[in-house]
Amino acid sequence: MPNPTAAILIIGDEILSGRTRDANMHYLAGELIRIGIDLKEARFIADDHAAIVATVNDLRARYGHVFTSGGIGPTHDDITAEAIAAAFGLPLDVRADARALLAAHYARSGTEFNAARLRMARIPEGAVLIDNPVSIAPGFSLGNVHVMAGVPNIFQAMVASLLPRLTGGRPLLSQSLRIDRGEGLIAAPLAALAAEFPDLGFGSYPFVQNGAYGSNIVIRGTDAGRIGQAMTRLAALFPAGA
Amino acid sequence: MPNPTAAILIIGDEILSGRTRDANMHYLAGELIRIGIDLKEARFIADDHAAIVATVNDLRARYGHVFTSGGIGPTHDDITAEAIAAAFGLPLDVRADARALLAAHYARSGTEFNAARLRMARIPEGAVLIDNPVSIAPGFSLGNVHVMAGVPNIFQAMVASLLPRLTGGRPLLSQSLRIDRGEGLIAAPLAALAAEFPDLGFGSYPFVQNGAYGSNIVIRGTDAGRIGQAMTRLAALFPAGA
Repeated sequence: MPNPTAAILIIGDEILSGRTRDANMHYLAGELIRIGIDLKEARFIADDHAAIVATVNDLRARYGHVFTSGGIGPTHDDITAEAIAAAFGLPLDVRADARALLAAHYARSGTEFNAARLRMARIPEGAVLIDNPVSIAPGFSLGNVHVMAGVPNIFQAMVASLLPRLTGGRPLLSQSLRIDRGEGLIAAPLAALAAEFPDLGFGSYPFVQNGAYGSNIVIRGTDAGRIGQAMTRLAALFPAGA
Repeated sequence: MPNPTAAILIIGDEILSGRTRDANMHYLAGELIRIGIDLKEARFIADDHAAIVATVNDLRARYGHVFTSGGIGPTHDDITAEAIAAAFGLPLDVRADARALLAAHYARSGTEFNAARLRMARIPEGAVLIDNPVSIAPGFSLGNVHVMAGVPNIFQAMVASLLPRLTGGRPLLSQSLRIDRGEGLIAAPLAALAAEFPDLGFGSYPFVQNGAYGSNIVIRGTDAGRIGQAMTRLAALFPAGA
C-alpha cells in the first residue's frame, strides 16, 4: 500500500515579502519523512481570504493530508480559521472547550481574556482541536486539513500533538555520497545505475566549494537493503580521489 | 497601474524530503520587492514531469511572471527544461548559441564537453537565454516563465542577469515596530488603526522571547509619506515600556 500523501500550506504576507524566512516547511518535511507520509507539494500564499479558500480546496482534494501554518492568532490579519471554515462551507463560532482552555490559561497568568483573545476560540463546526502546550490557543483538524500556528516553536509543539494521531506508512530512507566531481562527469554512469534500480530515487545535488564543482548523490527508498546495494555500486563507480 | 504579479516555483525532491532548506525563494522575494513586482505565491514541487507541466501551466496563466529554480543541470533527474517545453507544447533541442557558450567554457577549462553536458544546451524553441556568469550553462525565458538553476550562487547570478529585462512597478516599502506586548493586548487598537489606513497593509508577527510575548508590527505600502503617518500613530498608541 502506498504511503499517504501530503501538502504543506504556509500562509502569510511576511514570507512572500522577503521579510521573514520560513522555517516550518523544512521542519515538517523532516517529521513527515520519519512517519512515512510523502510530502508532494508546499505552497506559500498571502493572508488573502480568496487565495486561502481556493488553495485549501485544491490541495485537500488532491492529497491525503494538508498541513497549514500561520494566521490563527488574535489580530485582524489572522484570517485562516474563517477561510478554512469557508472552504468547507461550515460555520465558525466560539467553541466552549476552546474558550475554557483559554479562560483557564489567562486566569492562571493574570491576563485579561479580552475580545481579541476570544477570537482564538473560534473553531469550525466539527473540527478536532490540536493541543498547544506553548500558548494554549489550539489548532484544529477539519477533515484532512490540519490548521496550526505560524510561530515556529508553537508550530512544532502542535506538530508533536498532531502526528501521533495520523497513520503513516513506510518511512523514506536515504543515504548520500559526496562526489568531488562536477555533475557533467558523473551524469552518464549515474543515469545507468539509476535505471538498474527503478524502485529507488537517485537525486544529484550539485555544489560549488572553493571554486571546485561537486555533487551530493542521494539515494532514497523504503528498503534499506536495496539502498545499501545501490550505494555500494555507486561508491565503486566513483572512488574517492579518482 | 498595479504592479506586475509573480509566482516562484521551486523544483526538487531534496527540499520536500526535508534534506535541504531552500534559500532561493527568500532571496528572490527580496529582489522582487525592490523592483516592484508583487510576489503572490510560491510553490515547491518534486522532480516530476507531470507535476511541473501542470503547475507551470496553472501559474503562468494566473501571474505576470513565473520564476523557476532547479532541475536544469546535466543529470538524469534534471527534467525541468523538457517539462517547460512540454507545458508550452514546443520542441526542445540543442541550440547553437547555447552549445557555443558551453563549448568555449569547457575548452577554456580543459574539460570534456560530453553528452551529459550537451543536455544543458537544450533550449525550448523561441526562448531567450538567461546569462549564467558562474557555470555558463544558461537559463531561459519562455513567454512569462523564467527558468533558472537551483544552486544558490548560480540562481542569484541568473536573477541578476534577468531582472534588468523586466518591467517593475512601485517598490513595496515597509516599516516595522517591535512591541513588547502579546498580540491579544494590541489586536483591537491595531485593527482600528489598520481600518483608518485602508491603502496600507498592517501585519502582526508574534514572537516569544525569554518567555515573554511580543509582536513585530509591519506596515507596508508604496507611499512612504502614508507609511510614516501610520507609523507615527502606531508608535503613539503603544509607547515603549508602557
